[in-house]
Amino acid sequence: MQERDEIDIRPDFPLLEESIYLDAASTTPTPKAVVEAMCDYFYNYNVNTGRGAYKLAVKATNEFEKARSRISKFINAKPTEIFFTKNTTEAVNLVARGLPFKKGDSIVLPNIEHHSNFLPWLRLKEKGVDVRIVKADEYGIVHPEDIEAAVDKTTKLITTTHVSNAIGSVQPIHELGKIASENEVLFMVDAAQSAGHMKLDVRDIGADFVSFPGHKGLLGPVGTGFLYCKDEHAEELEPLNLGGGTVLDVKEGSFELEAVPARFEGGTQNIAGVIGLGAAVKYLEKIGLDRIERHSRKLTDMMYEGVSSMDNTTVYGSPENIYGIVAFNIDGVNAHDVAKILDELKNICVRSGHHCAIPAIRHLGAYELGGSVRASVHYYNTEEEIQTFIESLEEISKFLGD
Amino acid sequence: MQERDEIDIRPDFPLLEESIYLDAASTTPTPKAVVEAMCDYFYNYNVNTGRGAYKLAVKATNEFEKARSRISKFINAKPTEIFFTKNTTEAVNLVARGLPFKKGDSIVLPNIEHHSNFLPWLRLKEKGVDVRIVKADEYGIVHPEDIEAAVDKTTKLITTTHVSNAIGSVQPIHELGKIASENEVLFMVDAAQSAGHMKLDVRDIGADFVSFPGHKGLLGPVGTGFLYCKDEHAEELEPLNLGGGTVLDVKEGSFELEAVPARFEGGTQNIAGVIGLGAAVKYLEKIGLDRIERHSRKLTDMMYEGVSSMDNTTVYGSPENIYGIVAFNIDGVNAHDVAKILDELKNICVRSGHHCAIPAIRHLGAYELGGSVRASVHYYNTEEEIQTFIESLEEISKFLGD
Repeated sequence: MQERDEIDIRPDFPLLEESIYLDAASTTPTPKAVVEAMCDYFYNYNVNTGRGAYKLAVKATNEFEKARSRISKFINAKPTEIFFTKNTTEAVNLVARGLPFKKGDSIVLPNIEHHSNFLPWLRLKEKGVDVRIVKADEYGIVHPEDIEAAVDKTTKLITTTHVSNAIGSVQPIHELGKIASENEVLFMVDAAQSAGHMKLDVRDIGADFVSFPGHKGLLGPVGTGFLYCKDEHAEELEPLNLGGGTVLDVKEGSFELEAVPARFEGGTQNIAGVIGLGAAVKYLEKIGLDRIERHSRKLTDMMYEGVSSMDNTTVYGSPENIYGIVAFNIDGVNAHDVAKILDELKNICVRSGHHCAIPAIRHLGAYELGGSVRASVHYYNTEEEIQTFIESLEEISKFLGD
Repeated sequence: MQERDEIDIRPDFPLLEESIYLDAASTTPTPKAVVEAMCDYFYNYNVNTGRGAYKLAVKATNEFEKARSRISKFINAKPTEIFFTKNTTEAVNLVARGLPFKKGDSIVLPNIEHHSNFLPWLRLKEKGVDVRIVKADEYGIVHPEDIEAAVDKTTKLITTTHVSNAIGSVQPIHELGKIASENEVLFMVDAAQSAGHMKLDVRDIGADFVSFPGHKGLLGPVGTGFLYCKDEHAEELEPLNLGGGTVLDVKEGSFELEAVPARFEGGTQNIAGVIGLGAAVKYLEKIGLDRIERHSRKLTDMMYEGVSSMDNTTVYGSPENIYGIVAFNIDGVNAHDVAKILDELKNICVRSGHHCAIPAIRHLGAYELGGSVRASVHYYNTEEEIQTFIESLEEISKFLGD
């Protein structure tokens, strides 16, 4: 196995012994340190957080809040600005359903969003909200001037993905944040494909809300995610789920909400998952985000060059702009077939299809092709794996391509 | 360690070596078989479900759906009637927010509900829904005739907990189901305290919706829960979270929902947790619910008799009616202090306070006392543990009680 940039983390991922896993954009394997932190919870202090007087309950609560604190520091937020959710999707829905949008308001977003940062906003049309969808360029990059042109006095929020899950295109979020700020409009970023893959400072990008997955780039377990909500907006946000832990008092006719963030975390939380996510962030810090980004950029370039150098492929996105993800089609071969053959040949795991981003796939003109093949990486991948992937693709392209 | 009713499951719960855990009503320790099923996922096929063409994705999807199938059979439902949620609270909110309630509709529920089956309904008052709260009797039992008296032509839904988390009182759900059916009103049961503790057949109780925790009586991991939704109601229920996996097609202005249950499970699910929950149900089946119920009834009786035989205690609920839970106060001693001292004396874990059920606590007249002490059991508890608990309480009562 080829060494990568000093730290070999391969032994932490048993799954990688058998497979060449190139589907980080969907979810990532969970390193041993994270699974072990969860097992420690399950075997030694598997009790509920919050209100218990006994020592184990205090321990569970402390470990849960320590994870929140570590996660918040990692993105330069305060612990009270982190609301745990079950996934990124819930974090977006919490904002779309929780802010007091009303008839006549408008929202601005690109046409290349993942469904999870598209449908929750589209649903607001039922309330009479004008949902303004801005076309990205041919490489899947949305231009700040196009966003700005869609903003007017009715606009309440601009949202964008940081990195497109369907194309890998990196959006100009700093510029978009500036436009939002200048127009006194809320700014929400979907960090589903960037968190854990590159440095992300919520204050630096001027975001009011950022939705995070726990189980993708951050290397935490499935069943975790969170919303960053800038503290000044928490009071105007209505909780998605009311119930245990969200209120200070209840009378038969009324109730008084708990402080932030408790009011947003109704019912028993995924305590093991959050503790695992805390361990995952510690694990990432040990590797270092600079090192992760350097390595992933190298692998992205290798993939892009390898795929685009074949005669009969269409690669989406621009090589200078994409990060972590390469999406493509081999002319004349169905995307699912490519994925299946890669798996059969060398246990290579890549996604195929619409990647839960049908508007983005339509934008690329790939809807009629059944979508695209998508390969996506993280620090655990090696150059050797990418070479094998490219060689296998070349075989497929030679024997099956037009 | 005293043997209980043939099967000794104690070695499956490392946490119980050190502690006398009497807080099942809050959450339960997770047996080794469940944690191991999750580790198997994390280490061997930790990929996303749903749309992957590669073998690992097919495996993850199959295991996820096998868990759904097992869980559905366990409660006599169809797999498509199970919508996974992160906890019970989310399952209730999904129904309260998802059904098309409108101004002038009414809803009927008891006054002893957990906040999670109270606040989501109370919030509907904002929409002009009349939320009719029916008083339980002094033992925390709601009488069918009182519920029936509150039902009229505006009534759209009756909901009740199966077993009160604050009192342990078992509600007459069959009779309430009959009233709902006769009046052509929807019937929703909160099974937070009964699932896994006693047989529960969703068709037998005539429920349209039942909210389930995964991590309590069912012995699954935290971060899991589900809604049973009778198939004929799925189409009228709006998904709580729209996003990845919930739609068949998306255009810029509209979208078409996926089939049931996919449309209700937006974003990456807690795949490990659901697989763990499937393993937990298998584990419960191996023990047998008859055996569990017999054992828990014996322990409940022991607790009730032990606590009520002391001079200066107030025990809530009626001995013939409560199950699994005994709530009480020692006159003159704060509930939190009792819990803390039990923990200090013998590592006994019990809850104290309002148990996320302030209206129930007010109903019992225990609000000014700061709530109550609550001990709750499952099959892993032993008679010996209950004896130690009673003896410790007697000490506290002797030295500190009025």
